[in-house]
Amino acid sequence: MTKNRSDLQSYDFDLICIGVGSGGLACAKEAVNLGAKVACLDFVRPTPAGTRWGIGGTCINVGCIPKKHMHQAALLGNAIEDAPHFGWNVPKNYAINWKNLVTEIQNNIKATNWLVKVEMRAKNMTYFNGIGSFIDQNTIRVRRANGTEQQITGKYILIAIGNRPVYPKIPGALEYGITSDDLFSLSKPPGKTLCVGAGYVSMECAGFLNEFGFNVTVMARAEILSTFDHEMATIVKEYMASRGVTFLQYRLPKSVELTENKQLLVKFRNLKNENIEEQGIFDTVVWAMGRRALLDDINFSAVNITIDDHEIVVNNFEQTSVPNIFAVGDVVKGRPKLTPVAIKAGRSVARRLFGGENCCVNYNNIPTTLFTPLEYSFVGITEEEALRRFDENEMDVHHGYYNPIEFILSQRPTAYCYIKVITKRDESSRILGIHFIGPNAGEILQGFAVAINCGLTLDTLFSTVGVHITNAEEVTKVFITKRSGLDPSKPLYVVP
Amino acid sequence: MTKNRSDLQSYDFDLICIGVGSGGLACAKEAVNLGAKVACLDFVRPTPAGTRWGIGGTCINVGCIPKKHMHQAALLGNAIEDAPHFGWNVPKNYAINWKNLVTEIQNNIKATNWLVKVEMRAKNMTYFNGIGSFIDQNTIRVRRANGTEQQITGKYILIAIGNRPVYPKIPGALEYGITSDDLFSLSKPPGKTLCVGAGYVSMECAGFLNEFGFNVTVMARAEILSTFDHEMATIVKEYMASRGVTFLQYRLPKSVELTENKQLLVKFRNLKNENIEEQGIFDTVVWAMGRRALLDDINFSAVNITIDDHEIVVNNFEQTSVPNIFAVGDVVKGRPKLTPVAIKAGRSVARRLFGGENCCVNYNNIPTTLFTPLEYSFVGITEEEALRRFDENEMDVHHGYYNPIEFILSQRPTAYCYIKVITKRDESSRILGIHFIGPNAGEILQGFAVAINCGLTLDTLFSTVGVHITNAEEVTKVFITKRSGLDPSKPLYVVP
Repeated sequence: MTKNRSDLQSYDFDLICIGVGSGGLACAKEAVNLGAKVACLDFVRPTPAGTRWGIGGTCINVGCIPKKHMHQAALLGNAIEDAPHFGWNVPKNYAINWKNLVTEIQNNIKATNWLVKVEMRAKNMTYFNGIGSFIDQNTIRVRRANGTEQQITGKYILIAIGNRPVYPKIPGALEYGITSDDLFSLSKPPGKTLCVGAGYVSMECAGFLNEFGFNVTVMARAEILSTFDHEMATIVKEYMASRGVTFLQYRLPKSVELTENKQLLVKFRNLKNENIEEQGIFDTVVWAMGRRALLDDINFSAVNITIDDHEIVVNNFEQTSVPNIFAVGDVVKGRPKLTPVAIKAGRSVARRLFGGENCCVNYNNIPTTLFTPLEYSFVGITEEEALRRFDENEMDVHHGYYNPIEFILSQRPTAYCYIKVITKRDESSRILGIHFIGPNAGEILQGFAVAINCGLTLDTLFSTVGVHITNAEEVTKVFITKRSGLDPSKPLYVVP
Repeated sequence: MTKNRSDLQSYDFDLICIGVGSGGLACAKEAVNLGAKVACLDFVRPTPAGTRWGIGGTCINVGCIPKKHMHQAALLGNAIEDAPHFGWNVPKNYAINWKNLVTEIQNNIKATNWLVKVEMRAKNMTYFNGIGSFIDQNTIRVRRANGTEQQITGKYILIAIGNRPVYPKIPGALEYGITSDDLFSLSKPPGKTLCVGAGYVSMECAGFLNEFGFNVTVMARAEILSTFDHEMATIVKEYMASRGVTFLQYRLPKSVELTENKQLLVKFRNLKNENIEEQGIFDTVVWAMGRRALLDDINFSAVNITIDDHEIVVNNFEQTSVPNIFAVGDVVKGRPKLTPVAIKAGRSVARRLFGGENCCVNYNNIPTTLFTPLEYSFVGITEEEALRRFDENEMDVHHGYYNPIEFILSQRPTAYCYIKVITKRDESSRILGIHFIGPNAGEILQGFAVAINCGLTLDTLFSTVGVHITNAEEVTKVFITKRSGLDPSKPLYVVP
């Protein structure tokens, strides 16, 4: 506890957290642990479709957790498909019961909401179920959900309001479309679904819905997953196409109308040929076209916080242009929009303000996973980025296909299971990026991300003994370079 | 190609590999790639129960691969159990069909045997289906399976004959017991099974058989998994017990008899109370009491190779006491008996003999996984080893329980999901060991093993951002030390 008590006496709170998602909560908890008096504000504007949820932010309620549960449900569907090849005589008449799945997921969310509240109470945080907006840099107006208002003051303010899905500005978008904010609590099975968007939310939703047996189309105005490594993104897309997902690229939705039998007629532009009128009938349309903070809610203009393209600009210490105001999480410009990043940032704000620490979050080599049915995970740079940074002769791409042992007896196609390791081509052969597509990619990449943060070189990678039989050990065996022109495919048995 | 052709002219072959399992094959292939003329000998003595198999060694035929397939079958059984909690209305009347499972596994093995032969032929190796025994240090007598004999000479000889399961010297052991050499091709369901042994083979077999629904007992003369970290081994055992496996410790089998209705009566000694007569009725008895090489087959005494406790002694270059004779794989003393170790050793022998290389295999920090239904994987030292090496104040054990997201909806118990990180307690906090119990432990540990080979410290581990939501990210969050006395359990929701 390094703060000076006397200089806090004029404020109601040492810290006010606007938004209690992963980042806000991590900051609030750490601040309390370090002796600070903390207020937390949390309020969820209902979606156009009317969906509401409880405390805890996107990750818990409409993000990572329900997404991972649906992903896991998709994987379990795959497991039931595989089981007969491993001797299990599973009757063939099984299917997903959407209502049961959603009920299980929502029950878990409500339990989590409750546990968050219990913990906030145990830590003596003051909780407001209301919107917080700036009056000045130390004063927040709280507009409670029940309609009452009050003002509170804080020495430090944390903005951690997260992002919300963007809707297209076309007729019918708000009335008939939904977003990931609605999907995980959707009361009826989505049926034939159109996912509009080229990013990870669109792909992940399309992936699990397709594995549940729904007819799924992904519509994108250009490339799929354009910010990811191009080759890996293409493989992810091709795998999903092989499983039945339809891809409609270079299309932009124009309108959504309700048909007589309560389906949705979506008209769209073909950007490659404007003369063609295109349309489709769907039961559900999911907008997954990006996310943006509801910045107006916090009245940021009252405090002159620097905003760039709807995002809050902060320095290395998560500090905004107003010195006592900090921001973490998805609302911040230029930071990976990931739960663990928000948590690390939130915690480090508290430690600096109340714990006397001075260190910054390490934003390098942050691993990410795309939880499509065949997962894609990577850490470090893409091949495109390597080609931007280096001359082609200064870098190497090691790569290889592999045969997951899980796929052998069930004869799942292994053509999509691919690994790429990007290195600097010099004495040390420092590894700059690792990309992995296959079962459990997310689990596998974590340790390699740690290794890259330790300065991993190709020598160390290749000299480490593999864990036999895993897919992870394949990373230690990508001996073939693209430069060599050698065939990176693998014979259909496991031992080299 | 650095060898001098002239000095090879007096031999039939540059290299003779006795045994073409993972290690022998890796050496042979690398040698051929480097221009050597190679002969390969492979012969499998049938088991007492009459089981035979093809080329490729233990891993392919009766080891890692069929084991991992059975493990995967067990995991798929768990997945079917979980599926209803994720919305899948799987009918409850499913069960394992042992015959179908074994058929699938054996078909895959036969395909692999065939692919090994194709590859050997493609590489122009000379293949003998026969036992090789020494006449002198350059001359091998080949006794073919078909009864014919011949002598061949080689400049270098590689011994890579592997190990075979040990049988107890008690009445009925050979007649009525089987080993892992028989289990993966067993024609009838094993039924009520006794696994005798305290090591990983016994535990893995018991684990998958139990998940298939068979009644399983593990009998051990002392501690279970005594060479593993004691605390982790105890958790593995407790998990298996919670799933229904019976553990009979401090018992030694005395005899096996066939009962009238074709079951097996096993009598055993209670080492804690010799006065008690104990016995049990089983359908199958699996001996998993260790493995040993059939050294007599190779007539090692003709060449004075140093042997210690039935294992061949080699130096850092895999060289035996006879300079032109090398040994790799399970037959070697003091090396981890793991397929990837054998492969790395075999390949490095070839590279040194025929490729002009001079480097040794790095035998440090070799990760291992116990593929029990809840996997346990580790790299580096155990807590016991740390306590032997260091004063209690010179080391720290960070630890934590975690809740796998896969387990939440299906409410599988999370009490067994535990992580331990052992560090040197100094400025750098170098990490000396990582132990992980939970789903996909093998996949997760690989990257961390690479990181430990990069000199991983606690700072780097904790500063690496997690892959959300995975179980692997929990390793980056084991903030609590045993020294602190703080509760290492985790509240039942995922966000910290």
